[in-house]
Order: sequence, then structure tokens, then C-alpha cells
Amino acid sequence: MTDLSEMGKKAKTAEFQLSQLGTVQKNKALEQMAVALETNSAKILAANQKDLENAKNNSMSEAMQDRLLLDDDRIKKMADGLRQIAEQSDPIGKVDRGWTTEDGLDIIQERVPLGVIGIIFEARPNVTVDAAGLCFKSGNAAFLRGGKEAINSNIALSDTLRTALKDFGLDDNSVQLIHDTSHEVAQEMMELSDYLDVLIPRGSGRFIKMVVNKAKVPIIETGAGNCHIYVDESADQAQAIKIIENAKVQRPSVCNAVEKILVNQNIADEFLPKLAEKLKQEQVEIRGDAGVQKILPDVIPATEDDWYTEYNDYIIAIKVVPDLNSAIEHINHYNTQHSEAILTENYQNARQFQKQIDAAVLYVNASTRFTDGGKFGFGAEIGISTQKLHARGPMGANELTTTKYLVNGDGQIRN
Amino acid sequence: MTDLSEMGKKAKTAEFQLSQLGTVQKNKALEQMAVALETNSAKILAANQKDLENAKNNSMSEAMQDRLLLDDDRIKKMADGLRQIAEQSDPIGKVDRGWTTEDGLDIIQERVPLGVIGIIFEARPNVTVDAAGLCFKSGNAAFLRGGKEAINSNIALSDTLRTALKDFGLDDNSVQLIHDTSHEVAQEMMELSDYLDVLIPRGSGRFIKMVVNKAKVPIIETGAGNCHIYVDESADQAQAIKIIENAKVQRPSVCNAVEKILVNQNIADEFLPKLAEKLKQEQVEIRGDAGVQKILPDVIPATEDDWYTEYNDYIIAIKVVPDLNSAIEHINHYNTQHSEAILTENYQNARQFQKQIDAAVLYVNASTRFTDGGKFGFGAEIGISTQKLHARGPMGANELTTTKYLVNGDGQIRN
Repeated sequence: MTDLSEMGKKAKTAEFQLSQLGTVQKNKALEQMAVALETNSAKILAANQKDLENAKNNSMSEAMQDRLLLDDDRIKKMADGLRQIAEQSDPIGKVDRGWTTEDGLDIIQERVPLGVIGIIFEARPNVTVDAAGLCFKSGNAAFLRGGKEAINSNIALSDTLRTALKDFGLDDNSVQLIHDTSHEVAQEMMELSDYLDVLIPRGSGRFIKMVVNKAKVPIIETGAGNCHIYVDESADQAQAIKIIENAKVQRPSVCNAVEKILVNQNIADEFLPKLAEKLKQEQVEIRGDAGVQKILPDVIPATEDDWYTEYNDYIIAIKVVPDLNSAIEHINHYNTQHSEAILTENYQNARQFQKQIDAAVLYVNASTRFTDGGKFGFGAEIGISTQKLHARGPMGANELTTTKYLVNGDGQIRN
Repeated sequence: MTDLSEMGKKAKTAEFQLSQLGTVQKNKALEQMAVALETNSAKILAANQKDLENAKNNSMSEAMQDRLLLDDDRIKKMADGLRQIAEQSDPIGKVDRGWTTEDGLDIIQERVPLGVIGIIFEARPNVTVDAAGLCFKSGNAAFLRGGKEAINSNIALSDTLRTALKDFGLDDNSVQLIHDTSHEVAQEMMELSDYLDVLIPRGSGRFIKMVVNKAKVPIIETGAGNCHIYVDESADQAQAIKIIENAKVQRPSVCNAVEKILVNQNIADEFLPKLAEKLKQEQVEIRGDAGVQKILPDVIPATEDDWYTEYNDYIIAIKVVPDLNSAIEHINHYNTQHSEAILTENYQNARQFQKQIDAAVLYVNASTRFTDGGKFGFGAEIGISTQKLHARGPMGANELTTTKYLVNGDGQIRN
């Protein structure tokens, strides 16, 4: 039986050492970890092979098998991910603000690690490396639990990282993986409040909801994305079609794919047939409101439910709106506050859209698919927060920190 | 029956307007609210009189009655609190960072309001005004539920603020108070996830724990403080006695009062008798470990439980420690990560203490009692966060914000 409390204690000890490391030391260790992945690729691929065989025996879908698969190129990408994390600025020790109070106390608010970060995730083994790297850079101990489908790969990856840390003279418990993939141990991890400062679930919407409901440890929720693109009257229509196509079909299964298109009524007659043609080429099913049905008589009528639904599939719902205000109202009502875009050449409309919509990321003339830690330039991401507390949008090393106040006095007492 | 969903909808509408206001408008409205409190003081005091009569009839303790009591001076203080909030810099619209990605997207991370903030609190009516002011300044709608003991005062205060907002041409639902103080309605509020973006409980430790356990809305936990002062070998001993006295007895019932003293063994023989004399003068009960018992034979022996306990009373536990490292280890093990102080003239020890202890506020040569939004210069406080996520330590208007990313492109699609 896995003793999570024992692992938790080890994580706390490792975390204290980690929190005191300087930036150059951490970056050198990340480079060591990257080299170790490359050096040990044969061992990692052999372990991955076992997972793939099990997957085949269990009739896992091709798409899922592809997520599980590692090869030399993917290992190189994971190693390069660690190098990119090393290149990022260190969030620890950064001073957010400082001032002197009326009592003559000097106050500094400084960024410090959160502590021990639990990550619970499904099949993809690259999460092991990304999460370990981001936690390490931000001075946090990583406490990982991956899915049983990838357990052999995850053990090989975490053992490689742990050995690299040890060889570098650091506590290898900075990165720990739970080897027992039973549901009982997962549940115990979700209640490990004495040792975990936060728990971040990564995986399908259903998986995240399950963790949110069961966890007693503070959670950062990631994932849900009912993303909209509004095509303004002044939009560059050729560009609009390219952006919508990209946002829908470049990878329909992910949270930053677009699910809803709102089109200004003054261009609907001209724009919708061109858009429909492109989407049909890409095998995308179109559902439309009454305004769309008038112009494209063969679309499936959209129901009220459609406006709330995140399809994660080759389906899109389109609505004709009278103006920008209606588009903003619709989005603020139905969105999941993830990523929303306006396509426009009108300055004032762009500004109003970004100012009045409540969401993590607001685009002008770009695909919603850019909501991603890598694309934002964070080196990797620990997930995309869909909550407002603590962190919102793509989370990199910076989002894995909290602050402490350092207050320096010369004998002040309170009246 | 109070319809909380209806109130929630109104709050959302008000919040949209509020989020779009400029700084000068908000500050002028805060001044109007302050003036309204002063102008309507007779009405407010009459309502407060009713609460005080009920309190007497229900044999409320003198201390609790004092917390409930309003007079002209306290109303003036609440009004001045609003003016101090107006003087603070506006957290909304502040740009945390901005950069250009490798795809040529310009990203700006900007501070925006959280949305609708629920505050659930016990007897003190000043919370109504402080919370409304801080929420308003940070562009958030305030959704308040106070205790039944102060309901008449709270209604008079919130009505006064609402009328002032309306007279200023703003939506009076920016501040709403639930008039029904039943437990059923409180429970319903704690589950109002569709409308409340966060819920902040204020009151006793027991009250906060109850809310944390029952709430479905995201919570910011406030309150628990097992605060330590370490007296280093090099401390100015006369100053140390003044600071400890202040931190313990200036207001023993609050979370930033000191509960534990650690004394370096090299000064224990000299320092402890002087400290004990002062604490006895102030009627403070001393509990000590074996090291203290040797020097002060008549102290009550401290048990393992004592090191974990927040007394909130005229009780203190003292321990003799061999050195700074032991003090740091003890504090990191037993503290609630609230406020910790070192009293020292040694630069290196001060630095090590602040660097190695995990807590919201780390003092050198000052009383722990300064952990307070007012004393920090935030104008008022919505509470002192004892969690690491989102906000840590005293929370002012700045801590009631989240961010949005504004991403500007010229047709970027993702490869």
C-alpha cells in the first residue's frame, strides 16, 4: 500500500530546499533533466512500448493510442520544453511592490513558491515532464498522479528526472510520482490537505468535474471552453474564414477550439455562404439560428442548448446578430469565460469587445487556438485556468507562486 | 421569501456597469457615500438603538454589545474609511505585464474586477461599509449577509449607501444586503455559484470553518493565527518586552495577536524573568517548556497541544530554543502561516528568518499586530487571507481583482 503521508512529508522536506535555490542553479538542473531524458530515451521508449501493448490489448482507440505514444522526436520535444522553461524569467524573489507605512514600517511583497503542488492527470505522459519542469522552476515540489494507461512511461520519465536531480546534488523528492494507480489512492490524494497546497486536475471535462467534486485540497479548475468568434461588419472576410477554419478544425477536441460564430447581419448574406462552403469542405456540421437558416436553408436548426454546449468535435453553431452590443450580450450570457475573438477592422469595436466581455483571453483578429502556455511564451503550461481566483488563462511557472510580506521595523508597536 | 437568484441577477447587471467606471467617477461616488453616512447618522443610530435593545434583552455579553454599538464617532470613522479607500490607487485597468509572442501577437495582462463578491459576516456593522467600499473601488458588486444581531443597523447602513449611489446616477444594486437572516437563506447564499464569483467569510474561527465546510462558492479563507515571536540572542531586550507585551495584550482576541514566544537559550536566564514580570502585570498566564520551567519554576507546563493552539486570550506559551535554526524549524512546523516576528540586531539572522519561514507576513523588530489592511495602508480590509491561493495576508481592493489577457493580432492562425 502506497503511504501518501510519507510521500507528503518527503515532498515538504524537498520543497524547503527547493524554495531556497537560486535561479542559475535551477536552470542548470533543468538542463541536466533535459539531457537525462535524451540519454535515457531507449529505456523510456521500452517502458512506453509496454503501455502501448497494454493499450492495444485493451482495444484503446487510435486517437488515445496516439496521445500515449512516445518516440525520439517527442522525447526531444519534452527535453526542449524543459530548456524553454529554463529560459523563462524566474518568478521567485520577484518583488511585486514595496512601500513604507505611516508607522515607519518598510513592507516588501515578494513572490515565493506555493509549496507542494499535486497534479492529477489522464493518459498523456508529457504532462509528467511539463509539470515537473514548471513546478521545479517555480520552487515547488511536484506530487504527480497519472493514469494507469501510461504508468510504465510515467515511471520511466519520473525516475529519469529524479536521478538527474540526485546527480545534481538535489533532493530527488522534488519530483514524486504515485506508482499505485488505484482509485482509492487517487481519492486519498484528493484529500491530502496536510501536504498539498493545491491540486490541479488535467484531462477531459468529465475527469476535471469528478476531481473538483471529490477533492478537499484547494483546486485550480482548468478546461471548459465554449469559445466564440464574432465577425464584425468591417471584418476582412477572407481572413475571417481562415481564422474560423483554424479555430474550429486545427484541433477540434481541445478547450480553445471555437464552438460558436456570431455574424453581423449586414454582412451575413455575403459572408455565410463562403463560410459554409469552407466548413463543409472540412466536414464540419453547421447548426444555425433563424437568421442563418434564411441564408443557408439546409443547416440544422440550433436549439437553446446548443448555445451552451462545448462540442469538442466537428460541429459549430452560428447565429446572425444585429450589432456588436447583441454579440457582447450573447457572449457574456453563454460563454465559459475562456477565449473570445472579434474579427474587425474597426478600432472602436475592437476596444469595446475587449473591454466589455468577461473572459480569460480576448482576441482581435486572431484564432482562439493561441490560448496556450507554449504559444503565450511560458515554455509549457500546467493547464488553462477557467476560474477567476488565483490565476486565469494559461498557467506557467509564474502562476505557481504566492507572495509573502517582509516587514522591517525598529521597534514599532501598535496603538 | 428572499429570492437570492433575483438578487444575483441584479448584482450581475450592476457589476457590468461598475466594471466600466473610471477612477475619478468611483472616487466621487465613494465621497458621496461617506457624506451620506454622516448626513443620515441620526437614522442609522436609531436603527442601531433597536439592535442594542434586542441585544440587552437577549443578554448579549458586554464585549459583544460594544462591537455592535455605533455612535457619531464610529460613523465618522466609517465615512473616513470610505474616503481612505477613495485615496488608494485604483487596481482596475492596471497592466501587470505585456509582451509580443513569436507569432507576432501583442499580449497585455490587465487587472479587472472579480465580479460579484459575497461577504458573510457576524455582528460588527462596520463590515457592511468597509466591504461595500472596497468592492465598489475594485469594480465589484457587493452581496452582503450580516448577522441577525446587527440587522437593523446593517439595513440602515446599506440603504444609506444605496441611496447615495442612486443619487449619483449609479445602479444601487452595486451594494445589496440580504434582509432575511435565517440559516436557510445563509445556506442558499453559500451555494449561489451561478451569481457569486467568490465568498469571503468574516467572523470567529468557528464561524469561518462552518462556512468553508458548507459553501459551494469559491472561498477565500481568513482568520486563523498561531503567531510566533522569536527573541534572538542579539535582541534589544527592553524593546523585545515592549513588542511582546503589545503583540499579546493590546487586543488578545484577534488573529494577529502573538500566541508563542521562542527565546534563544543564551539570553533566557536574563530575559525570561523580566518578560515574566511584565506579562504577570498584564494578567497573562504563562505556559512553558522544560527550558522555561528551569528558569521560571512556577509556570504551567506546556503540552504538545499548546504549540498548536491559538488562544485568543490572556495566555501565552514560551519555549527556550538552542538557536535560530531550531526556532525556524519549530515555527514552520506549528504555525498557521499568518504572522511571525524575529527580534534581533543581527542582519544575517533577520534575513534567514524572513527567507526560510513560510508565512503571510514576516516581521523584523515590530509587533505582529500590524498585519491589518488599515495598518498596511489599504484604507480598510476585507479580511486577512490565511491561504496561499489568490491572496495572502491583508486583503484590500487590489486583492479583489483578477486579470484578463487582451491579445491583438493581424490574422494569426495556429500551425
